Amino acid sequence: MVNGNTSQRYTRGLEKLGLLGGSEEAIFAANAGVAPDLSRYVVEFAFGDLWSRPGLDPRVRQMLTIAALTSIGDTQRQLTFHIRGALQIGVEPSEIVEVILHCLAFAGFPRVVNAVATARAVFDEQGVLPLPETAEPDGPR
Amino acid sequence: MVNGNTSQRYTRGLEKLGLLGGSEEAIFAANAGVAPDLSRYVVEFAFGDLWSRPGLDPRVRQMLTIAALTSIGDTQRQLTFHIRGALQIGVEPSEIVEVILHCLAFAGFPRVVNAVATARAVFDEQGVLPLPETAEPDGPR
Amino acid sequence: MVNGNTSQRYTRGLEKLGLLGGSEEAIFAANAGVAPDLSRYVVEFAFGDLWSRPGLDPRVRQMLTIAALTSIGDTQRQLTFHIRGALQIGVEPSEIVEVILHCLAFAGFPRVVNAVATARAVFDEQGVLPLPETAEPDGPR
Amino acid sequence: MVNGNTSQRYTRGLEKLGLLGGSEEAIFAANAGVAPDLSRYVVEFAFGDLWSRPGLDPRVRQMLTIAALTSIGDTQRQLTFHIRGALQIGVEPSEIVEVILHCLAFAGFPRVVNAVATARAVFDEQGVLPLPETAEPDGPR
Amino acid sequence: MVNGNTSQRYTRGLEKLGLLGGSEEAIFAANAGVAPDLSRYVVEFAFGDLWSRPGLDPRVRQMLTIAALTSIGDTQRQLTFHIRGALQIGVEPSEIVEVILHCLAFAGFPRVVNAVATARAVFDEQGVLPLPETAEPDGPR
Amino acid sequence: MVNGNTSQRYTRGLEKLGLLGGSEEAIFAANAGVAPDLSRYVVEFAFGDLWSRPGLDPRVRQMLTIAALTSIGDTQRQLTFHIRGALQIGVEPSEIVEVILHCLAFAGFPRVVNAVATARAVFDEQGVLPLPETAEPDGPR
Repeated sequence: MVNGNTSQRYTRGLEKLGLLGGSEEAIFAANAGVAPDLSRYVVEFAFGDLWSRPGLDPRVRQMLTIAALTSIGDTQRQLTFHIRGALQIGVEPSEIVEVILHCLAFAGFPRVVNAVATARAVFDEQGVLPLPETAEPDGPR
Repeated sequence: MVNGNTSQRYTRGLEKLGLLGGSEEAIFAANAGVAPDLSRYVVEFAFGDLWSRPGLDPRVRQMLTIAALTSIGDTQRQLTFHIRGALQIGVEPSEIVEVILHCLAFAGFPRVVNAVATARAVFDEQGVLPLPETAEPDGPR
Repeated sequence: MVNGNTSQRYTRGLEKLGLLGGSEEAIFAANAGVAPDLSRYVVEFAFGDLWSRPGLDPRVRQMLTIAALTSIGDTQRQLTFHIRGALQIGVEPSEIVEVILHCLAFAGFPRVVNAVATARAVFDEQGVLPLPETAEPDGPR
Repeated sequence: MVNGNTSQRYTRGLEKLGLLGGSEEAIFAANAGVAPDLSRYVVEFAFGDLWSRPGLDPRVRQMLTIAALTSIGDTQRQLTFHIRGALQIGVEPSEIVEVILHCLAFAGFPRVVNAVATARAVFDEQGVLPLPETAEPDGPR
Repeated sequence: MVNGNTSQRYTRGLEKLGLLGGSEEAIFAANAGVAPDLSRYVVEFAFGDLWSRPGLDPRVRQMLTIAALTSIGDTQRQLTFHIRGALQIGVEPSEIVEVILHCLAFAGFPRVVNAVATARAVFDEQGVLPLPETAEPDGPR
Repeated sequence: MVNGNTSQRYTRGLEKLGLLGGSEEAIFAANAGVAPDLSRYVVEFAFGDLWSRPGLDPRVRQMLTIAALTSIGDTQRQLTFHIRGALQIGVEPSEIVEVILHCLAFAGFPRVVNAVATARAVFDEQGVLPLPETAEPDGPR
């Protein structure tokens, strides 16, 4: 490991990070020479403490991540990483879209339009476009 | 029905609202004499269009609602309604807590501490306190 | 005047504050013994510089105030003051409701539901409830 | 029409969208293959339900849109569209600037500085720069 | 200790919490029966990891806390705790007011007016009102 | 001076702006032809009234600026200016990083990760990378 940290929290965090397609190298490269502790907190706290909690299905947990990031705004970089991660653990592209659209009621159109644009860029990069059409809840209008 | 609206969107929205423990009467009483159309939009758009979309398990959808409301802030009133609603459709109290705690990484402590206080008040009102202790992800510290 | 400030900005600000139903006494009482300069900045900058700018009808300017406060959230105290102020300068209660509802697209339901509740409390205090029903844009549904 | 939707809400929404210089094609192209329903909600709910409400002058309504988007932040894309739309329906460039500056009291300098930069880019694209100087409210300082 | 946690992070966090006038008992009571892990994260991460970092004077660190809470909004509960804590470690009431007023440029009047009201309530409770008047930067206007 | 404004507020504001590495020319160029009054308000109110207040060490004041901007989000442009300004008046790069990391508890990872990326770009531009490693509060893990 990059920094020889062998605590349970750190090891567990790295493992979850890896599940989502991230790596210790990449997470430390982003803050290298400036704030290595921020990278460590991401691994230990965000992934090792929070993402590793039992009691929720990992796919659901990642959908919650996308809902929170969509609602908060100014999170394009984080949404890109976590939408890739969601795909990685088997969340369907159509489910990701549903998660973002659900936030429309709470966060308004600008946040949702921006998040869908970010999702689209990730889907394009991963070659999963176009998504199959969703059926309307009550058939044709 | 209160206002004789019989469109599919409205009917479908009322049904979902009812599943979460809300009622047409209560939703219109809140805005009566001021903005009945706001009540209508809640039923038609938030519940009839968005909450009624297929493609996500309703329990997951309601967990997403709680994550979005936690992250946005100044939503005590809405969290109270939607935490009650989550319990109503079988989301476990411990799952609700997990959803709120997951937002810690994205929205910070103040939003999460406030949302847990709101959840606690609802759990108290519903007589489900104390919740069983969550096991640590890696056993005793 | 409470603090003997006779600059143009201050005098102009006090006048605008008065139009909206505020007073120098009340604005200084709120921060007395703690931050009198905050009261002064409210008069000089918010009312004397910004609210006093030409180029917009005062009623429109006050509607913009309500849109901004609705969108920002955690502004119940400010919305109460500025909705009273809007009524004071002849903005119709129904126009205030329209302003708040318009924000639904951008700020989502929680912000708008909260702002309508605040408006309703002010309308109730001013004895203007119930408001006349708005006609639908395209007749009966 | 792109998707054969002939409901009153949809038709009315398209018309309003057109007034602001948008088109069904463009709004569906943005979400094509990912979330066509988001485009539909924009037309039906944002434009067909909300923007189409009577009771406010359309120019005022569009000024409210700019105030809300300025206050919310992370809305450069939406501000660009809606500032173009405001010009399209006869809101003066100087009025747009006044709307944004008014938000300074509520949303602070960063939101307003960003929105003015966006407005400036649109004004430049439309060839309306420089704007005429605004007179000071009380003559020369 | 309440929960027998003897890690360095936890012990260090408790000590910092104590400096600010908090206690393990109070922090666990707030989430008792619902989310004891949230209390633990407050101690371990917020106080043990972050607040305990070297490199900033503790008084400055607590002023930063107040600036962040003022700017975020919907944080009355947290501001109350942290303004009390700031007084506890020797931040002057007038410095606390300066910190909040400084945020006016970035967060706007509503956030700052709300934070000053919270500070005032804490100052009143602690019997330090009225504060001495601040001299103007350039003498009488 | 660009616009012949010789008020005390304006002169004092320009001086502070200069300390942070800004200039009247640059601040007016940014809004030229669109909103010269916004530039004037930046100088008069943000720098001349607020930044010029006595009672806080200027270095602390600039650290508060960075905490507020980090917490608010969508402020990359402002953070870039104010991190440069902080370096200009002798805030150490490592102190700037500490300020941003401290906000993690309140504003969450996305805001802090974005602000660290902005700081890193400024540090790179100023040739101060890599920063010396921070010692852990309690020695090796």
